[in-house]
Amino acid sequence: MFTKRTDLALEARELWQESAQRTSRLAGVKATKQKQEGYPVTQVDILDQRGEEALGKPVGTYLTIDLTTFWQRKADFFERAVRVVGQALKGLVPPEGPVLVVGLGNRAMTPDAVGPLTLDSILVTRHLISAMPRQFSGFRPVSVFRSGVLGTTGVESAEAVRGLAAEVKPALIIAVDALASRRVGRVCATVQLADTGIIPGSGVGNHRSALNRDTLGVPVFSIGIPTVVDAATLAADLLEEAGAERVDEEALRASQQNLMVTPRDIDAQVRDLSKVVGYGINWALQDLEIEEMNALLS
Amino acid sequence: MFTKRTDLALEARELWQESAQRTSRLAGVKATKQKQEGYPVTQVDILDQRGEEALGKPVGTYLTIDLTTFWQRKADFFERAVRVVGQALKGLVPPEGPVLVVGLGNRAMTPDAVGPLTLDSILVTRHLISAMPRQFSGFRPVSVFRSGVLGTTGVESAEAVRGLAAEVKPALIIAVDALASRRVGRVCATVQLADTGIIPGSGVGNHRSALNRDTLGVPVFSIGIPTVVDAATLAADLLEEAGAERVDEEALRASQQNLMVTPRDIDAQVRDLSKVVGYGINWALQDLEIEEMNALLS
Amino acid sequence: MFTKRTDLALEARELWQESAQRTSRLAGVKATKQKQEGYPVTQVDILDQRGEEALGKPVGTYLTIDLTTFWQRKADFFERAVRVVGQALKGLVPPEGPVLVVGLGNRAMTPDAVGPLTLDSILVTRHLISAMPRQFSGFRPVSVFRSGVLGTTGVESAEAVRGLAAEVKPALIIAVDALASRRVGRVCATVQLADTGIIPGSGVGNHRSALNRDTLGVPVFSIGIPTVVDAATLAADLLEEAGAERVDEEALRASQQNLMVTPRDIDAQVRDLSKVVGYGINWALQDLEIEEMNALLS
Amino acid sequence: MFTKRTDLALEARELWQESAQRTSRLAGVKATKQKQEGYPVTQVDILDQRGEEALGKPVGTYLTIDLTTFWQRKADFFERAVRVVGQALKGLVPPEGPVLVVGLGNRAMTPDAVGPLTLDSILVTRHLISAMPRQFSGFRPVSVFRSGVLGTTGVESAEAVRGLAAEVKPALIIAVDALASRRVGRVCATVQLADTGIIPGSGVGNHRSALNRDTLGVPVFSIGIPTVVDAATLAADLLEEAGAERVDEEALRASQQNLMVTPRDIDAQVRDLSKVVGYGINWALQDLEIEEMNALLS
Repeated sequence: MFTKRTDLALEARELWQESAQRTSRLAGVKATKQKQEGYPVTQVDILDQRGEEALGKPVGTYLTIDLTTFWQRKADFFERAVRVVGQALKGLVPPEGPVLVVGLGNRAMTPDAVGPLTLDSILVTRHLISAMPRQFSGFRPVSVFRSGVLGTTGVESAEAVRGLAAEVKPALIIAVDALASRRVGRVCATVQLADTGIIPGSGVGNHRSALNRDTLGVPVFSIGIPTVVDAATLAADLLEEAGAERVDEEALRASQQNLMVTPRDIDAQVRDLSKVVGYGINWALQDLEIEEMNALLS
Repeated sequence: MFTKRTDLALEARELWQESAQRTSRLAGVKATKQKQEGYPVTQVDILDQRGEEALGKPVGTYLTIDLTTFWQRKADFFERAVRVVGQALKGLVPPEGPVLVVGLGNRAMTPDAVGPLTLDSILVTRHLISAMPRQFSGFRPVSVFRSGVLGTTGVESAEAVRGLAAEVKPALIIAVDALASRRVGRVCATVQLADTGIIPGSGVGNHRSALNRDTLGVPVFSIGIPTVVDAATLAADLLEEAGAERVDEEALRASQQNLMVTPRDIDAQVRDLSKVVGYGINWALQDLEIEEMNALLS
Repeated sequence: MFTKRTDLALEARELWQESAQRTSRLAGVKATKQKQEGYPVTQVDILDQRGEEALGKPVGTYLTIDLTTFWQRKADFFERAVRVVGQALKGLVPPEGPVLVVGLGNRAMTPDAVGPLTLDSILVTRHLISAMPRQFSGFRPVSVFRSGVLGTTGVESAEAVRGLAAEVKPALIIAVDALASRRVGRVCATVQLADTGIIPGSGVGNHRSALNRDTLGVPVFSIGIPTVVDAATLAADLLEEAGAERVDEEALRASQQNLMVTPRDIDAQVRDLSKVVGYGINWALQDLEIEEMNALLS
Repeated sequence: MFTKRTDLALEARELWQESAQRTSRLAGVKATKQKQEGYPVTQVDILDQRGEEALGKPVGTYLTIDLTTFWQRKADFFERAVRVVGQALKGLVPPEGPVLVVGLGNRAMTPDAVGPLTLDSILVTRHLISAMPRQFSGFRPVSVFRSGVLGTTGVESAEAVRGLAAEVKPALIIAVDALASRRVGRVCATVQLADTGIIPGSGVGNHRSALNRDTLGVPVFSIGIPTVVDAATLAADLLEEAGAERVDEEALRASQQNLMVTPRDIDAQVRDLSKVVGYGINWALQDLEIEEMNALLS
């Protein structure tokens, strides 16, 4: 069977259902859906090893926020998106202690720039609290790290984060990265949060060593935005929908290798959604209104 | 029938042949193929109105250079590519008179940045010749124009170029832009030159008013690099290859709208090929070796 | 006598007064001072040829807004600065007709980037009004032009603007540029508006041909921010203050040539003030609140 | 006495000599001068505590390469500059073991961008050697780190480098940074190498905790380019040359605070010299010709 690439737990579950032809029940996985701030939020809980094996993702909680209507730019679309991301993150992370936010990916390559761009909207406070503890007593200490990419640093992101964490001693790490979706409709229209850590670069490149509690020694939360669809996956979906009985994976991969499908105006979309994620992280970590963030980050 | 999008005359001819099931002969069009500097070069001449109607492109000469092997980085791949582009251009343009090189497209959006990036490698000489005519007597006067995009300037590229041309009075205009291909294999692996002018933005956006001899009053040559495939065109090709009897264009366009297919490392590829085009233009216009260009442009 | 470089009419008047030892009255020049929105505004009117000769600037009105307190970031500092710039401009320009805003200078060189950066905050409406006249009926048509610099275009800014103006047919042109001040205290702390046009590049480079009603055929207004002090001028001022009886201009120019004095954090300051100027232009030209500009430009 | 700011050991020695009126001999310091590849090279050795106290810099070797003639662009100016930097570095560093190159400073602020820009020209090999040990057996393992600045990361450069070094385990660290000079003639015309480590940000900002063998546990070498002159230092020098008997430091610092003096075309100069330093590091660490570096880094 053709292996369809996705980083979204939601889609892994869909793929399982398709392959099982929706007849059986997926043991070890629970999914619930609701609306928050006008945006649909799906929670997929992978409960045990059966769920892990079925979906190919570790035990944990995965929240998928559907921001499709964000682009209609209706009343307070930005503020509502910030609050829904912020609220989802707040529900996952411990309420106290210093935080290290890691932006994974390559700023120079738009579909991979979600991590670095998000960091531009993060309120960095650790050094201020350290220098002026009284004035900044109301803030939670936050530092950030732009990991860069292996090809330009020579160092795996996981190595670099582990070294930095040993110095900064965060209570938790939030890792932000671009993801791959299986459906074009979810590209630049979805935010996934997870309490399971992340494997950097799965969105647009090779799998690298994981950032999670096992490798870093502290809880690692991840926030990702799908920015691309694997071209071979898209092609396979199209062929199946058209009634193709069997898709030759090898041939399809060969013809579509190194290709990705993205929105035409991906630059603007990635910039806007990265700001939503950055502000959402601020919302979850600091006691601030969005206008105050605007003022502090201008 | 599904309308497959391409800016390459070579592919327009292929599409005609496919639709005609290769049985009939395409009247009004002549195509020849040869190898130069190790790269295949196809020349398509649209000779009359029959050719125009069949291929949807104006009468003129279209040269397509296949740079697929460029990426194998074999001996002198860069120098050979510069020479083949330079030689092809030299064969099209008049040998004397001032030149205005126009970079169309949006620098901030990688697949659309071919034009602006190419200008970074152009030897700009007009002001030097004007200030120091004796010292720069061996150079041809070249000026450049970054047209920007309508959304950020409020002015059509064709309007802006017409105004500038009225002041600069070039003997010819060379317009550089990103194109759309129908085949993924040609993306970032092809350079097309034409003596027919260009319609800006056809590569990644809407058609705008043309840049050609009719609208600008001087001969307009175009150089383009395909950087994207229209996702709906790719999908239709895939479905046809898989044996789909009829492709529902409307449905396919709706599902794939505003999507494009690009290489994963498009940023680096566009940067490298834009340098080839810029140096190729210098090669055609000035009496310089590539090393001299390196020194002058560093 | 040492020639002190300044682009500010206010300082030209100060220099005249210093050289005249404040004993005589400056004929042909009128100066008045007031406070608006909490910022001091000085108006220098050069009334006739006597004033022109004394100050080395053409007859016209020069408004200097002192934004020194902007950097204290007190209540509504940004909004007040936008309104004071907007109000000053509104008092100079005709109330109707299409507008072309020209950003002079070099984006890649921070002290020269005021023009290009300002354009990033301009509401560009000409193409929208043209495409959807009914929906955008409340807006004034605005287009923008990034002139680039002679060394990278081969074309004088004045030539390029003249060509564009022949196509766009604006009722007025607003040219934005970086300036040189004579006092470090005014650098990144002043905005000058004038109804006399501008000589591009006088801030950080050589004088080029002027942009004014004579050369462009329509009224030209200028807005400038001093970003540098000429190092030789600063040195001469220091030496005079220290009691040096005679300053050897030639020697001082030789030792300080090609040097400029700028604030350490010029990048952030130029970015913030360019936004003030861009929003101020919007305020003068469109019927919009600052929050509406934020929404439209995000 | 006025404290003149400089990061160059060469200038610290000059200042000592000026204050001592050149009558006494500077104990604990040895200086020698020679020419290499056409560029003058001065070596200042601080031998003991007397030298440390006199010059305000730790015991060690400081090499200053005078690249003033680089800008005349005579034959092989670039290649010769690379070799003189490379040779100087090769004489200081141990011949074997993995290397971590740290680029200090702020890429977004030109006079502070020497570190990040230099890294763009470094051959990063650690990950390649690790993945393909046989193919890359001829290379020395090099990784790089862009430390960012405290205000945007919340983490001191020294902390971050210490954490990374614990993971990467380099045999030596090379830290690259912008410096402050006391003489405008040395700005963008000098490279200083030292085997004593570095205090980040002394070039354009506040002193932060040091990067040296004490704080990082491995030998730390530094390479710096002066990009600015402290405006107050320049002013004091000017006043003294003009015969001012006593310079009021407090007043001068107040009037010139937060100002720096830089070349007008600092952007291009910093870019070119950062490439010299990057290639010089490659020259010292790898067995490669400059042309091979060009090919590998293109």
